[in-house]
Amino acid sequence: MKAVRLNHYGAYPVVEEVAEPKITGPHDVIVRIGGAGLCRTDLHIIEGQLKEFSGITLPYTLGHENAGWVQEIGSAVSHVAIRDTVIVHPQITCGFCRACRAGNDMHCISPAFPGFTIDGGMATFLKTTDRAVVKLDSSLAPKDIAALADAGITAYHAVKKAVPVLYPGTKAVVIGAGGLGHIGIQCLKALTPAEIIVVERSPEALELSLSWGADHTVLVDGSQVARVKDITNGQGAEAVIDFVGEEGALEDGVSMLQRAGSYYVIGYGGQLNVPTLNIIATEINFIGNFVGTYNDLVELMTLKAQGKVALHTTIYPLDAATDAIHDLDSGQLRGRGILIP
Amino acid sequence: MKAVRLNHYGAYPVVEEVAEPKITGPHDVIVRIGGAGLCRTDLHIIEGQLKEFSGITLPYTLGHENAGWVQEIGSAVSHVAIRDTVIVHPQITCGFCRACRAGNDMHCISPAFPGFTIDGGMATFLKTTDRAVVKLDSSLAPKDIAALADAGITAYHAVKKAVPVLYPGTKAVVIGAGGLGHIGIQCLKALTPAEIIVVERSPEALELSLSWGADHTVLVDGSQVARVKDITNGQGAEAVIDFVGEEGALEDGVSMLQRAGSYYVIGYGGQLNVPTLNIIATEINFIGNFVGTYNDLVELMTLKAQGKVALHTTIYPLDAATDAIHDLDSGQLRGRGILIP
Amino acid sequence: MKAVRLNHYGAYPVVEEVAEPKITGPHDVIVRIGGAGLCRTDLHIIEGQLKEFSGITLPYTLGHENAGWVQEIGSAVSHVAIRDTVIVHPQITCGFCRACRAGNDMHCISPAFPGFTIDGGMATFLKTTDRAVVKLDSSLAPKDIAALADAGITAYHAVKKAVPVLYPGTKAVVIGAGGLGHIGIQCLKALTPAEIIVVERSPEALELSLSWGADHTVLVDGSQVARVKDITNGQGAEAVIDFVGEEGALEDGVSMLQRAGSYYVIGYGGQLNVPTLNIIATEINFIGNFVGTYNDLVELMTLKAQGKVALHTTIYPLDAATDAIHDLDSGQLRGRGILIP
Amino acid sequence: MKAVRLNHYGAYPVVEEVAEPKITGPHDVIVRIGGAGLCRTDLHIIEGQLKEFSGITLPYTLGHENAGWVQEIGSAVSHVAIRDTVIVHPQITCGFCRACRAGNDMHCISPAFPGFTIDGGMATFLKTTDRAVVKLDSSLAPKDIAALADAGITAYHAVKKAVPVLYPGTKAVVIGAGGLGHIGIQCLKALTPAEIIVVERSPEALELSLSWGADHTVLVDGSQVARVKDITNGQGAEAVIDFVGEEGALEDGVSMLQRAGSYYVIGYGGQLNVPTLNIIATEINFIGNFVGTYNDLVELMTLKAQGKVALHTTIYPLDAATDAIHDLDSGQLRGRGILIP
Repeated sequence: MKAVRLNHYGAYPVVEEVAEPKITGPHDVIVRIGGAGLCRTDLHIIEGQLKEFSGITLPYTLGHENAGWVQEIGSAVSHVAIRDTVIVHPQITCGFCRACRAGNDMHCISPAFPGFTIDGGMATFLKTTDRAVVKLDSSLAPKDIAALADAGITAYHAVKKAVPVLYPGTKAVVIGAGGLGHIGIQCLKALTPAEIIVVERSPEALELSLSWGADHTVLVDGSQVARVKDITNGQGAEAVIDFVGEEGALEDGVSMLQRAGSYYVIGYGGQLNVPTLNIIATEINFIGNFVGTYNDLVELMTLKAQGKVALHTTIYPLDAATDAIHDLDSGQLRGRGILIP
Repeated sequence: MKAVRLNHYGAYPVVEEVAEPKITGPHDVIVRIGGAGLCRTDLHIIEGQLKEFSGITLPYTLGHENAGWVQEIGSAVSHVAIRDTVIVHPQITCGFCRACRAGNDMHCISPAFPGFTIDGGMATFLKTTDRAVVKLDSSLAPKDIAALADAGITAYHAVKKAVPVLYPGTKAVVIGAGGLGHIGIQCLKALTPAEIIVVERSPEALELSLSWGADHTVLVDGSQVARVKDITNGQGAEAVIDFVGEEGALEDGVSMLQRAGSYYVIGYGGQLNVPTLNIIATEINFIGNFVGTYNDLVELMTLKAQGKVALHTTIYPLDAATDAIHDLDSGQLRGRGILIP
Repeated sequence: MKAVRLNHYGAYPVVEEVAEPKITGPHDVIVRIGGAGLCRTDLHIIEGQLKEFSGITLPYTLGHENAGWVQEIGSAVSHVAIRDTVIVHPQITCGFCRACRAGNDMHCISPAFPGFTIDGGMATFLKTTDRAVVKLDSSLAPKDIAALADAGITAYHAVKKAVPVLYPGTKAVVIGAGGLGHIGIQCLKALTPAEIIVVERSPEALELSLSWGADHTVLVDGSQVARVKDITNGQGAEAVIDFVGEEGALEDGVSMLQRAGSYYVIGYGGQLNVPTLNIIATEINFIGNFVGTYNDLVELMTLKAQGKVALHTTIYPLDAATDAIHDLDSGQLRGRGILIP
Repeated sequence: MKAVRLNHYGAYPVVEEVAEPKITGPHDVIVRIGGAGLCRTDLHIIEGQLKEFSGITLPYTLGHENAGWVQEIGSAVSHVAIRDTVIVHPQITCGFCRACRAGNDMHCISPAFPGFTIDGGMATFLKTTDRAVVKLDSSLAPKDIAALADAGITAYHAVKKAVPVLYPGTKAVVIGAGGLGHIGIQCLKALTPAEIIVVERSPEALELSLSWGADHTVLVDGSQVARVKDITNGQGAEAVIDFVGEEGALEDGVSMLQRAGSYYVIGYGGQLNVPTLNIIATEINFIGNFVGTYNDLVELMTLKAQGKVALHTTIYPLDAATDAIHDLDSGQLRGRGILIP
């Protein structure tokens, strides 16, 4: 089958022929890919930034944001059947450790991540397990929902953590209205009564964010902190949800936070630098966010089915994977890029 | 009356005669001081580190950790009476803003802090209001509990936030077994079933911490992170409660934290520097902590009355305030210093 | 001034001349009433059902759902001024007890309830205190929001408690789409992504409930439990919010609840009768709800200002109070009745 | 092998020879029983009270409170090995449904209960699955911990729910100091700083409860409600934890509850009868409790290993099962009865 293979860090991956995956364990599931999302994390992987985290030996197949149809199942698989439409949770989990049993499956003690620590889904077929597939209504097209498997779940997970602090009258700042941010805005609208302030460098994305549910838009032009302070009566926002996490976003974001407020870290790349005196004097919190749970993904698929979350995508054939990566890398890709085998 | 006056930043305060405070509002309460605690924050104030935060003009009276007896009350004061023994919450609050009404009175929108933004309690008398005094059993001696008014409440407040993550089998690292830390250890023991690991530079304090409830003691000798990893089966602790907040404690503490763990920032002075990649990849949280609420102080007084919290203090007459400050500054003060007028 | 006076239990109250209230304490506030809501609880008071709860001696003035303009203030009142538009929280609270300080002001240890334990607001003027008045934008007309002071806050308070269990994909049953229920439906829509199932005896109210946000409507015709089971795939709902609390509603509601579900008791009059075996075998909860906090009322006023909560009212002049009470009693009053002095 | 078989409802079960269980699925685990607890629920089963709940056809083997050593495992079992000492969670769960993934495995949509809906552990061997066995230190004797598998986990689960409301200064009433109650008292002591008031009919059990951690003991002699009111300054307790659930305990318990308090229903048999007016006027809650989760059992085993929970048991050989049942039925069994094959 065809697969997008990373052969060397620092060089773009290429589409090559590789062997198809085979069922080897009783809980294995092989998914015929209908859509595989392309993510900024793929660029970080290609650049080699994450090679210590992943621990994988090259070459391997990229693709951690996948949806498709069940092609083959292991002997103990019972809750999905061949031909079912499925979205694939990005992490394979054990189901037996405390985290898996406590609803924190992202912290499974023996996880695997297709597209990151094992072969991923930018290919004709993907091998995962029954614990990682969410069965969907057959009317859904995998290419239309694949981006929810990682970008979507990550945005949803962070927003869900913010729900308890976002009662009527509160304000939430969303930094970054891109691949994750545009889903985050819609999730905030669906889950909370908070007013949403979107802070973003691109005037086009800001304009679009109004249609996703933003109540206020703030262009990153040097006056963004002052603008947010104005909108929040000088107090700052109860929650800052940062989908950027680098290049000044962090400094801005901390300044936009109200006393006793919470800062949700999702974007990454930069460094959080805050004097402890500021942390204690204002009693603020920094909340890490890592993908989301299987149940988060199910809940997000419900929001999608209810029409509360729309995705902004650009479709490429799998053979054009390099073009897609180039477009993302050069800032020319609008919405989430989806590869179709 | 006598009072410990700060006349110039950078110079030790001196004991001087000043006018006695007078009742001017219906909710005013004047407390005859029985004990006023001396705190590392007083050193920071003297050095001028907090002058922008406080916004006060010198000279003024120090002392934000006070207990005594009610001397005089305003016309609308009903829940304390003259001669009642009281401990004084460090913040005067309005009672009308959302924070005051929501149980977060530390975030009152119009607060005053005796000893920080107005005259404090290192004096014969202190002026505060009825919302800030906790009535105590007359058997309690103010000098024996004054240190709970700030050191105690701050440690308690942070520990209380950690309760939901500290179920049986979890471990909590306490960094620093000094004025706040020794109360924090006792509060952890009283409120949670977690195993307590104390990390501290002083062998004497480590030894004492066993009597306060520590299950494991770790000397800061360069191997402290490795020792904590060993004690936690290589995973790190579910909670790190940092009463130091400077000089390597932060870097150590973050390394001692488990995936999905929470870091409680109480000590201050240093800078939190963490790559956002680490925050998201391990989904850790940093939780700010600022003093504590009035109800926190009431709860802590209950623990004290139940014999679950003991204080380690050294008594000085008010006239010897400069000696006490010198002892604290030079590391010779054991336990919390208490000034008695 | 004129006031609606209850002279004898079991007889309708009458409009009479009484003395105007006077400022006697530093925190007193006198409100010129712009609208006073009429509530089913007023009928219970008139019938004498609550005389042991209230402990009041007749005669007195009814009216616990009030809004208007500040007429006069005591010497210590600072957060409202004469002529401010205000809505009046139904309970006068002390501000000093644990409950007041913890955000549970409904459980104040020394409360007073105008219209229930002291003279109420069906009159030209009402006496309350500064802790009970919420300042509003002057563009709001008291008659248009008065019903939020009790019916609204009670519905909001119960819905807010249900927020943590109502994630995407869950269903909430609302029993009763009357004075409280119609606000409850709108609050559910504003605060949660749950699907809303309204169960109600009146076809007209059911029809209206679709405009307030109901996703499913179920007529009480004997098949209501089966219908709810159908809509919830045989499982029942995660939350049942019962604004009726009598005449079969309780038995129905318990049968509509999912395993581990929560039943919010708001309506009253009937008796909860459930075998403990059922409670433990399905691990269900019954959650009491009593009015709501001051902060709840502020949050609800925000929803109103954002256009997320609309009220269905019928206006009567104060002189026609008896007609209004008769109409409510006989089931002819549509929406909430509002008396205007 | 030998097994305690229930052949007819209403007649005591008998020890008979039956076929040994066999591994049939990849996740099956066969446990050689070291101790099987006898529970009041077994009496209810024998009497036929639960036959509609269980849906099982007689005859079958009783025993839902089991510990022992792993005898044989299915092909996919990886987290326990032959000869491991294990305690058996009373429910077999699927691991794939929302409840299993959310940390509420007691609400698994396809559960099985050995000793209730399938053959149980009063036998030489028990068949369960890998999701239901907790691996223990080999130093633990199954007979000494078996009673924690059901009585223990149920008491622990309820107490854990009460932790958030039991801060310093609060009081918890425990109704019933028997098989579950004596563990509940110890769990309250381990997890909370609340003062514990034990209400019980047996003077001997009351006396013992002081050694388990009770702060106050109240004999059920007609004055128990008044006594609890005295101990709680007339307010009632913040939490009532009812391990009896019948014969007046419920009426007493509700009267012992403070405004805004929570009533934890664990014992069953009686009927909860409360006017909705009382529920709303005092805003009280009734919280159902059903066994506990796998993680609860792991946490409880930690408390046991830490010496914080001691069990009161009486040992019988499996062949004397009928004697044990008779002793329990006639009130002569002290502590939990444990059968040893």
